[in-house]
Amino acid sequence: METAPAALGCCVVQETRLDTARIRAARRVIDPIFLDTPLYRCEALEPDLGCTVSIKLETANPVRSFKARGTEVVASLLADKGSPAVVCASAGNLGQALAWSGRGRGLDVTVVASRFAPAAKLDRIRGLDARLELVDGDFDMARERAAAVALYNGIRLVEDSLDIETCEGAATIGLELVDTVPSFDAVLIALGGGALATGVGHVVKACAPEVEVICVQPLGAPAMTHSWRQRRVVTTDSTDTIADGVAGRRPIPAVLDDLLLVADDAVLVQEASIIAGMRMLLDHAGLVVEPSAALGIAAILEDRDRFAGRHVATIVCGSNVDMDAYHRWVGAAPIHR
Amino acid sequence: METAPAALGCCVVQETRLDTARIRAARRVIDPIFLDTPLYRCEALEPDLGCTVSIKLETANPVRSFKARGTEVVASLLADKGSPAVVCASAGNLGQALAWSGRGRGLDVTVVASRFAPAAKLDRIRGLDARLELVDGDFDMARERAAAVALYNGIRLVEDSLDIETCEGAATIGLELVDTVPSFDAVLIALGGGALATGVGHVVKACAPEVEVICVQPLGAPAMTHSWRQRRVVTTDSTDTIADGVAGRRPIPAVLDDLLLVADDAVLVQEASIIAGMRMLLDHAGLVVEPSAALGIAAILEDRDRFAGRHVATIVCGSNVDMDAYHRWVGAAPIHR
Repeated sequence: METAPAALGCCVVQETRLDTARIRAARRVIDPIFLDTPLYRCEALEPDLGCTVSIKLETANPVRSFKARGTEVVASLLADKGSPAVVCASAGNLGQALAWSGRGRGLDVTVVASRFAPAAKLDRIRGLDARLELVDGDFDMARERAAAVALYNGIRLVEDSLDIETCEGAATIGLELVDTVPSFDAVLIALGGGALATGVGHVVKACAPEVEVICVQPLGAPAMTHSWRQRRVVTTDSTDTIADGVAGRRPIPAVLDDLLLVADDAVLVQEASIIAGMRMLLDHAGLVVEPSAALGIAAILEDRDRFAGRHVATIVCGSNVDMDAYHRWVGAAPIHR
Repeated sequence: METAPAALGCCVVQETRLDTARIRAARRVIDPIFLDTPLYRCEALEPDLGCTVSIKLETANPVRSFKARGTEVVASLLADKGSPAVVCASAGNLGQALAWSGRGRGLDVTVVASRFAPAAKLDRIRGLDARLELVDGDFDMARERAAAVALYNGIRLVEDSLDIETCEGAATIGLELVDTVPSFDAVLIALGGGALATGVGHVVKACAPEVEVICVQPLGAPAMTHSWRQRRVVTTDSTDTIADGVAGRRPIPAVLDDLLLVADDAVLVQEASIIAGMRMLLDHAGLVVEPSAALGIAAILEDRDRFAGRHVATIVCGSNVDMDAYHRWVGAAPIHR
């Protein structure tokens, strides 16, 4: 795949909060270690999936997820302003990324997370020298606590998906997707808070509007998908999914507004499909991924007819997973057909 | 890490068969999908290894190994000449890579392999539309058979490590390693036939001679290491290692001559260390690798004192592994310390 000159002339998707020129500029402040990630066709997956599948791999970097694209932008702006500290709530990946980006710029980083978050994620946040505060509740409770910490200390609160830097950082993935030849027919994007989906979706709709933008969420954490379908914020009382990275209950109104402008569809998948997707990525692509990163493959598995014969790109967005849980889900035995 | 202008001025390592200018030119004929692969520090590995560790990841591409860097050069030259066909012997990875590179250029590709090669590798060679011929012996017997096929059909025989394209293609990894800041103290390279070791070693010695080039081979397949140590070709009667990708018995004299000029050391590691290295890469880096790709980590594990406090780069050269064997080696349970 090579750079397509045509991609230089992007349309304006005026209505979202995101700005394509600013997204291009974001590339200049993001450490190159997080940019231009592998994008390759994975033919070994195709017999089982019935379509052409390309993987955009966001795990081969120091924090093993795409989140640093956003935290690099945040930390760069804070460092320019001379800010000494920053706090965020995190399901685990944003916290690692902010810790990495902040450490390199001399920022004091506090991460608030659920004590039920994967130990692998919490360990890495500590390992990157951040202050980790755990709440006895879920991600949305961590959000409340992080806001209180920010207010009390008078420091910047980074709100994933709400803060435009997190969306526009993630959107740089979109630039790398649309700058390839041949183009794709559809892009499958994990949907959680919405930074990845609105970011990539914005760029795809601006630069390659013919490509279908499909968001994928677990049936057990469907708040944003229900909100998208009903065109209004729908919250849930709880979540029930192994895909911890996308398990939110309270969609952010401004993010939903953006998502309504850029997503062609939002689909929900079963836990069994997420596990099957993880197993396929292991057996046929040699990739260990966290559950959220298998949502795209899960969506294909649940609707092969929809994708038959098409070229689908899926973003493998993270690989931070507790290995004991991973082995329990995926099992030690290979798939035999 | 960023591009270092200083790296533009490389010395001439005149004595090897490789040429730095030709290696730079090779980048122009290799599909970009195989170039500029991830290179990142993996801090989660460091507490166990006692040194700073950076990974050069050669598995996130359509053939899941570094070998296509060489076959792209070979296939490009053959296509330019209008050659219709090509044959190689392969332990499994070269065959996949030649099949991929040849298919894209309309070449008829034959691969000769041992019937004992991993089924995953043989399946992928077939999947990439190559003609696969199996011999009832090891890789060195496949080499003999491939030579006979080439002679009989009057077609080009690609000899891994002997043919300069395979070395100079692999050497493009070296360019990507020396063009980074900060530089490394040592580079650990899997040693089999020698294409990777002489290729990367040539560039490192030409452009960053202060970096130690350390080749790593299994104790169960030590022919090239013994040859390097004795400065003459030493063959063995058999091999006994799970690292199928580097299990040769008969070093090629011209390749040994090059290796003597570029390697600072060649070390042998035990099977248990290779397995421990694979497990560490899975548990702490989220990487599934084939045994050959864990040789560098194995070398650190066997001699922590040597590397203590230094910055070591290791090339994760392939991930084509039978998953049932992988699970048997690595086990389903995570490491608890």
